[in-house]
Amino acid sequence: MASLTEAITTAREESSNFTNGIVSGTESPPSKPKRSKYRHVAAYHSKLQHSSLSRDAETTPSFLGFRNLMVLVLVAMNLRLIIENFMKYGVLICIKCHDYRKQDLILGSILYASVPCHLLVAYIIELSAATAAKETVGRQKKTEKEKEHDQKVFQSTWPYTAFLHTLNATLCLAVTSFVVYFYIHHPGIGTLCQLHAIIVWLKNCSYAFTNRDLRLALLNPAADPGLPDIYSSCPYPRNITIKNLAYFWLAPTLVYQPVYPRTPSIRWSFVAKRLAEFVGLAMFIWLLSAQYAAPVLRNSIDKIAVMDIASILERVMKLSTISLIIWLAGFFALFQALLNALAEVMQFGDREFYTDWWNSSSLGVYWRSWNRPVYLFMKRHVFSPLVGRGWSPLAASGMVFTLSAVLHEMLVGIPTHNFIGVAFFGMMFQLPLIALTAPLEKVKGPQGKVIGNCIFWVSFCLVGQPLGALLYFFAWQAKYGSVSRMRPDMPTVV
Amino acid sequence: MASLTEAITTAREESSNFTNGIVSGTESPPSKPKRSKYRHVAAYHSKLQHSSLSRDAETTPSFLGFRNLMVLVLVAMNLRLIIENFMKYGVLICIKCHDYRKQDLILGSILYASVPCHLLVAYIIELSAATAAKETVGRQKKTEKEKEHDQKVFQSTWPYTAFLHTLNATLCLAVTSFVVYFYIHHPGIGTLCQLHAIIVWLKNCSYAFTNRDLRLALLNPAADPGLPDIYSSCPYPRNITIKNLAYFWLAPTLVYQPVYPRTPSIRWSFVAKRLAEFVGLAMFIWLLSAQYAAPVLRNSIDKIAVMDIASILERVMKLSTISLIIWLAGFFALFQALLNALAEVMQFGDREFYTDWWNSSSLGVYWRSWNRPVYLFMKRHVFSPLVGRGWSPLAASGMVFTLSAVLHEMLVGIPTHNFIGVAFFGMMFQLPLIALTAPLEKVKGPQGKVIGNCIFWVSFCLVGQPLGALLYFFAWQAKYGSVSRMRPDMPTVV
Repeated sequence: MASLTEAITTAREESSNFTNGIVSGTESPPSKPKRSKYRHVAAYHSKLQHSSLSRDAETTPSFLGFRNLMVLVLVAMNLRLIIENFMKYGVLICIKCHDYRKQDLILGSILYASVPCHLLVAYIIELSAATAAKETVGRQKKTEKEKEHDQKVFQSTWPYTAFLHTLNATLCLAVTSFVVYFYIHHPGIGTLCQLHAIIVWLKNCSYAFTNRDLRLALLNPAADPGLPDIYSSCPYPRNITIKNLAYFWLAPTLVYQPVYPRTPSIRWSFVAKRLAEFVGLAMFIWLLSAQYAAPVLRNSIDKIAVMDIASILERVMKLSTISLIIWLAGFFALFQALLNALAEVMQFGDREFYTDWWNSSSLGVYWRSWNRPVYLFMKRHVFSPLVGRGWSPLAASGMVFTLSAVLHEMLVGIPTHNFIGVAFFGMMFQLPLIALTAPLEKVKGPQGKVIGNCIFWVSFCLVGQPLGALLYFFAWQAKYGSVSRMRPDMPTVV
Repeated sequence: MASLTEAITTAREESSNFTNGIVSGTESPPSKPKRSKYRHVAAYHSKLQHSSLSRDAETTPSFLGFRNLMVLVLVAMNLRLIIENFMKYGVLICIKCHDYRKQDLILGSILYASVPCHLLVAYIIELSAATAAKETVGRQKKTEKEKEHDQKVFQSTWPYTAFLHTLNATLCLAVTSFVVYFYIHHPGIGTLCQLHAIIVWLKNCSYAFTNRDLRLALLNPAADPGLPDIYSSCPYPRNITIKNLAYFWLAPTLVYQPVYPRTPSIRWSFVAKRLAEFVGLAMFIWLLSAQYAAPVLRNSIDKIAVMDIASILERVMKLSTISLIIWLAGFFALFQALLNALAEVMQFGDREFYTDWWNSSSLGVYWRSWNRPVYLFMKRHVFSPLVGRGWSPLAASGMVFTLSAVLHEMLVGIPTHNFIGVAFFGMMFQLPLIALTAPLEKVKGPQGKVIGNCIFWVSFCLVGQPLGALLYFFAWQAKYGSVSRMRPDMPTVV
């Protein structure tokens, strides 16, 4: 049949001569008849050959075509689901359906305004500590005795500083959590407030810890050579300024440094593009959740209620694709679009907010690479110091995950008004998973990496995420019923 | 959070020292604190970096992880559909439901036995022609005059030979088609008979054409040097034996050669494996069609009847995945498993029954590579001779596709008792598609190839196949109603 392309090829190649056609065509028979006028005798089977898919074949063919096919099938399957969804539910997107209570918005804004004030408090605490430190250093011509005395004085003052910081930081988190849990009904608004509070809390801690060590370094410079060179442009007490703190407050990082690498200028076009991406993706996510995630979640409630395993599994799988897309879009919107835009505006130089976590060959690599800001905070202010105090790395890591598990539960449990601990145990569950997959990083050849990568995707995106979402949604429904008033005409078919 | 793996890494690497841990870990901060005892001051942001997904990034990261994800999502989505299917229909597979009529089986077996006899007839025709040729050649010391006379004689005899062959071959095809169309109800049995008849018909043609040219070459050897060397071990008249023909009859090729490349021995283990693959895949296909394809087809009938475009589209898409899997499994079962097993038993050396058609960058490449036996037949006995007679390659190719379109319609239309011409026009439609995609083969860089490959997959596997299946099924239903008695309790929900 195939000869047509040859034909066309030949035709194109201005040679009406068939043999040339064949020659120029990709397909010339192993031994070509020498321009025989007897065309029916050509020996097309002239040598031993294996099928390209046989084990015996010398070279395995490329399977790139199948990759293209996979993409197409995925598109087709999802297009079909979209059509099916519309045929079942029509258009579910309606802004009015969401009941944003006035109170939620007011309280939310108040929290947003008040939370950063705690950073101001932290600044004042640091300022006093800094002046104290300056005085001690100020006195010239010190003897060793005096130096030691200074140390003692400092050692005795630190606890107070520490106490004040703890009080301040904890207050920030506690108040927000309390208000969100008891007075802000809408989970969306609640989550935003809670997220903001946690971020500021982390920044608070970093600010306090870093300045403490800087102060120590100042008090006995001899003891330690190890202050990064980059700080030299702004040595310790000089960094305790409102401006410096404000920069840290807005900068896309949770790790305080007196000095950060900076970009020479702001490319506003870059900012605009990133913001456009963010807005676009945010809307995309909203549409997806309203049109696809919501009905699936709604339909799965009775299934969970009766604990029908088969249908729960079916629901989780249906949800997994949607939640996966939402997750990926959300990741890109936050870590690529928003943080880059923010960084550009702040001329913040280090844009490594993530590395290629999607290739993670183990859960460990994933947690190291997907959320760099949090990872760096945990490493600098929790893991590293604990190990420095002689904790075993394992114990220190346990601590890290316990802390982040608590924060995760606060972030999800409080806005949804349900401390069901799924987020907490989900995080804690990472420890065994990491231990399990860690060996795969070491495996030679791609095999191990692929397996590890698949374990990561399945455990995290295809099962963990949707299952978690289902459970919190179920808990919510059990407590309040639907967030969005269901339109009466809306069927609840699976 | 991530530190745990470092932890584990560290722990594993017998160094309880954190700094070493970091060093040995994949993650060491750009400028590491020089074993500072002040751990909170480490400068983790110490140089300008871009996000790896940004345009500015020096190197684009690998996206292998996303390939793995695609595979997983495909598996998950289809698993879900399987569960959904069972929840809707339960188990649909039941052997009794199929009504194999006794008559069908009897007639089918008779046809299977009778069809090869036509090859025997072809042999007898060739034998007489060969003896005639031998006589003419036999006489020694020929003058040019005599030679010309011989030519004339031969030229005059060929039409009779040709006529007999045509009669014989056509009879073979005509009788089978007649019986299948009017007396064999079951489309499965019908297709098998029809396929067998077409194969034998093609072998018949090849046998006749090849021997004609061999005879010509024998009668004036001077005229043409071009007999393939591989034939020398069995020069013309010696190849006209029952044994030689029987081998061609059973060999996995449609192109007759007096001699084929042969393998030294039969590896029975190889044969067993291939047959196991074939049986396994055959059952797999049967299960798929019974459990998944059948209900989808059944549910789409009313949609087609009322010509509801949206739902027809939805049906075609739902069908496409299934028909695609069936198609791929069928290809592997026939071209890899069965033909290789057959070739091994026949010690047939040239196993190139297909090349990597899945990477086809155009429809033309696809038709050249997916079904080599038919492609080689068409090229050797239709395209090449026509071009030899001065046809334009385009016209010759048109001829090739018209012929194969006719054969396709016979293969599908006759067993389903519906000449609706979809198969025919489906094949003819390939001509414009090939012309359309041919330029993409020439495009530099992967871009063009990917586009061409996608056009191929969509046009052929995602739309062409399922749409064709739908239409023939619809025609069948319109004429006879369901093939398998539907169980009364079986719902026909979408």
